Amino acid sequence: MQRRMNKLGVAFRPHVKTTKCIAIAQAQIAAGAQGITVSTLKEAEQFFAAGISDILYAVGMVAPKLKQAAALIQRGCALKIIADSAESASAITAYAQEHKLPFEVWIEIDTDGHRSGVNPNGEELLIIGQILNRHEKTLGGVMTHAGSSYDLNTPAALQMLAEQERSLCVQAAVRLRAAGLACPNVSIGSTPTALSAQQLEGVTEVRAGVYVFFDLVMSNVGVCSVNDIALSVLTTVIGHQVDKGWAIVDAGWMAMSRDRGTQKQSKDYGYGQVCDVSGKVIEGFQLTGANQEHGILSQVNPCDDQKITSRFPVGTQLRILPNHACATGAQFPAYYMVYDRQVIGSAMSRFYGW
Amino acid sequence: MQRRMNKLGVAFRPHVKTTKCIAIAQAQIAAGAQGITVSTLKEAEQFFAAGISDILYAVGMVAPKLKQAAALIQRGCALKIIADSAESASAITAYAQEHKLPFEVWIEIDTDGHRSGVNPNGEELLIIGQILNRHEKTLGGVMTHAGSSYDLNTPAALQMLAEQERSLCVQAAVRLRAAGLACPNVSIGSTPTALSAQQLEGVTEVRAGVYVFFDLVMSNVGVCSVNDIALSVLTTVIGHQVDKGWAIVDAGWMAMSRDRGTQKQSKDYGYGQVCDVSGKVIEGFQLTGANQEHGILSQVNPCDDQKITSRFPVGTQLRILPNHACATGAQFPAYYMVYDRQVIGSAMSRFYGW
Repeated sequence: MQRRMNKLGVAFRPHVKTTKCIAIAQAQIAAGAQGITVSTLKEAEQFFAAGISDILYAVGMVAPKLKQAAALIQRGCALKIIADSAESASAITAYAQEHKLPFEVWIEIDTDGHRSGVNPNGEELLIIGQILNRHEKTLGGVMTHAGSSYDLNTPAALQMLAEQERSLCVQAAVRLRAAGLACPNVSIGSTPTALSAQQLEGVTEVRAGVYVFFDLVMSNVGVCSVNDIALSVLTTVIGHQVDKGWAIVDAGWMAMSRDRGTQKQSKDYGYGQVCDVSGKVIEGFQLTGANQEHGILSQVNPCDDQKITSRFPVGTQLRILPNHACATGAQFPAYYMVYDRQVIGSAMSRFYGW
Repeated sequence: MQRRMNKLGVAFRPHVKTTKCIAIAQAQIAAGAQGITVSTLKEAEQFFAAGISDILYAVGMVAPKLKQAAALIQRGCALKIIADSAESASAITAYAQEHKLPFEVWIEIDTDGHRSGVNPNGEELLIIGQILNRHEKTLGGVMTHAGSSYDLNTPAALQMLAEQERSLCVQAAVRLRAAGLACPNVSIGSTPTALSAQQLEGVTEVRAGVYVFFDLVMSNVGVCSVNDIALSVLTTVIGHQVDKGWAIVDAGWMAMSRDRGTQKQSKDYGYGQVCDVSGKVIEGFQLTGANQEHGILSQVNPCDDQKITSRFPVGTQLRILPNHACATGAQFPAYYMVYDRQVIGSAMSRFYGW
């Protein structure tokens, strides 16, 4: 991803909500990333404590969180926050005035109707920009996330959405500048659009998160293959229901998460794709059901005459590939790097909560 | 629940996988619970370290976990483990013989085709019993979990399943005893059947977990009302999409979990029921969508003419009731007890991982 961004001539700001792991974020920075994106102020605090200072908090700021954000800025963190409403912008500037704090705010732009953000062509964009720069130059840029890219699955559609994400976000910056408001940063991105964009004129940086592991959702979107997926859950067969063709494993939804992101995609993987312990896909076998600590492993289109008990004896160790790496990772306190069935180095801890 | 079990004349062994919280388990024991049920050996270790010794590990034991279980027993934990196959039973007794350890094993019975367990009327039950008692008296009882009770929603159906769970588990014990194998413990339970059973003849103890909080799934099953739900997630409105009738809140699936347990029930609550900050249900408003740290709040059957921005201004604090308390609780490091909008006492921490 870093090489791709270098070629496209933009900075890369990985979204560390996927891993919440300092060792992995440091590896991304060592590879060339300029700053990180976070989804909670706790992430900002943890990564700042680990020495990463350039942080974009990419969830709309509201008044109750300003004190926590201010504390980070006062300690030297180059924190950028975002707003997509006049109310939020006013709350931020009022707080900044009162506490004499140099907040940097990026305006969130809606480029695909997916979630948050203001219309790049609407009046509200300029109103927010004016509020932000009323007293001090608080406006630092615009940002968008084309999250609807997760719903696509052809290169042509992805390229079109990537261009839409780019052009509408750049347009918002152009409009702000035309209104006399400096807008140095233009930040866009999602893993699928970042991997599909053909050119990024006017963009200063790209954000992406899940690319770091990939997952079954991304393989259905078409931006990776199942063999590219770097996150798996180790599990053991603990029993069978022979009549039903089930092997019971000790990875349920507490391990895999309840994410069923592939349910509406071209290939539904249940709660995950079954692999042997070395990570080789066992075609046709999925985690078809999940209770808290029990997973139900079965063949999706039963055609194998071999009994489930001899195919997967009690004690068999397996790996399950996740639908959604962000959700599965969040269930665990640490990652282990594995090569040739051996754990390499020590556990890489991750944090959780808010 | 404890009063109900006292009346029915059985011991109560709460399943602490719901809370993973020592303070709450201690309150359950203070109320009369005899021992606890756990879903991981980490839970067993944590609760044993907190002084709770009588522990049933209710997930099928396999060879790779025996060492960890043995360490608990050697330190004085009255740990009971379960098996539902000849392979597991053999692995346990071989380990017990080799290490001269007094394992106590309960045989898991399948009473509703839901997941694990052996047929109470099959040959395998007696074979497992004989393996367990071949050298030492390792067999300690039978246990079952009628998890299919979650799929029901009438008192009559629940009472019938509760009686099926009871009678088939007792039958397994009777068959083992007739074969000369002592079977002192007969353990059954799920929250819906525990609250529906009319009599528990032959049963020695009942297990239940989610009753401690209840949730929207349980209210659809009909064993609680929405107002009985004791777990909620505090969130704040961070923005709007007026055209779509959306308020964006800062609780996404990382806070609520991805559990969509009400999706196939009589009432689908999306990712959760919206309440005001005091916990009063706001009829018709749900968390209809969820990204990692963003929730989409909207009216399910739009009929309210009031604009979403004036109904839920930016900064509004709300509470969201969860589909599944076990899954939502698992996303947080601690619980806060709230009365009349004030936090009572200190945070009650919970643990996670394996």
